Amino acid sequence: MFIETKKRSLIKGISWRFLATTTTIIIVYVFFGRLDLAIAAGILESVAKIFLYFFHERIWQKIKFGKQRIEPFNLWFTGLPSSGKSTLADAVFEELNKNDIPLERIDSKDIRDVIPDVGFERADRHRHLTRVGHLIKTLQNNSVSSIASFVSPYSESRQVIKKMTNNYVEIYVKASLDTCKKRDIKGVYKKAESGELKNFTGISDVYEEPKSPHIVIDSDAESIAEATVKIVQFIKKNYLP
Amino acid sequence: MFIETKKRSLIKGISWRFLATTTTIIIVYVFFGRLDLAIAAGILESVAKIFLYFFHERIWQKIKFGKQRIEPFNLWFTGLPSSGKSTLADAVFEELNKNDIPLERIDSKDIRDVIPDVGFERADRHRHLTRVGHLIKTLQNNSVSSIASFVSPYSESRQVIKKMTNNYVEIYVKASLDTCKKRDIKGVYKKAESGELKNFTGISDVYEEPKSPHIVIDSDAESIAEATVKIVQFIKKNYLP
Repeated sequence: MFIETKKRSLIKGISWRFLATTTTIIIVYVFFGRLDLAIAAGILESVAKIFLYFFHERIWQKIKFGKQRIEPFNLWFTGLPSSGKSTLADAVFEELNKNDIPLERIDSKDIRDVIPDVGFERADRHRHLTRVGHLIKTLQNNSVSSIASFVSPYSESRQVIKKMTNNYVEIYVKASLDTCKKRDIKGVYKKAESGELKNFTGISDVYEEPKSPHIVIDSDAESIAEATVKIVQFIKKNYLP
Repeated sequence: MFIETKKRSLIKGISWRFLATTTTIIIVYVFFGRLDLAIAAGILESVAKIFLYFFHERIWQKIKFGKQRIEPFNLWFTGLPSSGKSTLADAVFEELNKNDIPLERIDSKDIRDVIPDVGFERADRHRHLTRVGHLIKTLQNNSVSSIASFVSPYSESRQVIKKMTNNYVEIYVKASLDTCKKRDIKGVYKKAESGELKNFTGISDVYEEPKSPHIVIDSDAESIAEATVKIVQFIKKNYLP
């Protein structure tokens, strides 16, 4: 984020006034052919407009029309491991980032990289998500929206996130277990089936399907591009100015 | 945070152009006494300046002069329980908030309220602070500075925070154990001495004094107001535009 220093604003203001007044002088000279009067009119215009501009700004400060509060949203992707949540969330992030709004991408993997010793049992997952909820809430306090992708298998945890944050938008990335297994690049499903990974959602732990998600993406049938358009349009319609 | 809608910008622009051109017409009329020519000059001026303003803006877009990047800082208060960290951090927050920079206040108590089941053993504290470091870093990614107050008794944890975040400023709030005990409104020192609270910094756990804090506040001798001025001046000098 950049800010404009006072010096820059001042010099930019002077540069505009110089350009604007020179234009007036030229126009008046072309119309009336008197350079002395044209310059005098230009000087008077300069002084008058510096004050006028000031008052114009002050009056507009008081006019509420067209001022829109940014409503930071919390776009939450849930679904089985390897269902395509992260890939889709990345695509949506890239697209929404073009809109020049403060936006943060939060992925399960990144958070678990920073704080590795979080377990996968019900209580661990729940605590972990409460922390993520707090992170998103703190970002929202500072007008930052977020795009989060977490397996988040329990209704209870998703309810907590919903309560903690504003403008919670739930995207259920639906894929059959077979599709997920086929997409399983990291080989986690195999490890889960062999018992090497415990409490693995879809194999040895439950995934509680969302009851009323805002958007359902059928990851078996819809392409990333199609799904991205659908989600971006929903956000644009509801949360972007 | 508010943003200006396109409609507001448009109407504000038209309102200014109307005011500015009317002024030109009046000035030209006063100088030359020809209303028809004055109006013609005004119309020409209007059209010319709409385009000139556009090009003026585009040229300034390319000029880097006076554009300053916001450097989000991480103001970190450390010290014994009841040393006065939170009170001082609150005062500094209130003062710095007047400068219209994105700023978040993070207090140990607030975080532990959200996620209560964090222990006080060395490993628990360390993990907890790593999470706080991640929160601060994510805020900084979005240009938000933070003012954090945590006992943070171990050098090691403070080093981790320092490495994770940018512009780490360490404030050591120094107070004698006696002073802290006197200020102990919540009665935690008594509980620690009776053994009800375990791993209590200053009583049953070590506080490793900061070796090179940026600022040391002698909480026994300096008032909140004095200390606030000292810290705010440091931040203004080093991190505010």
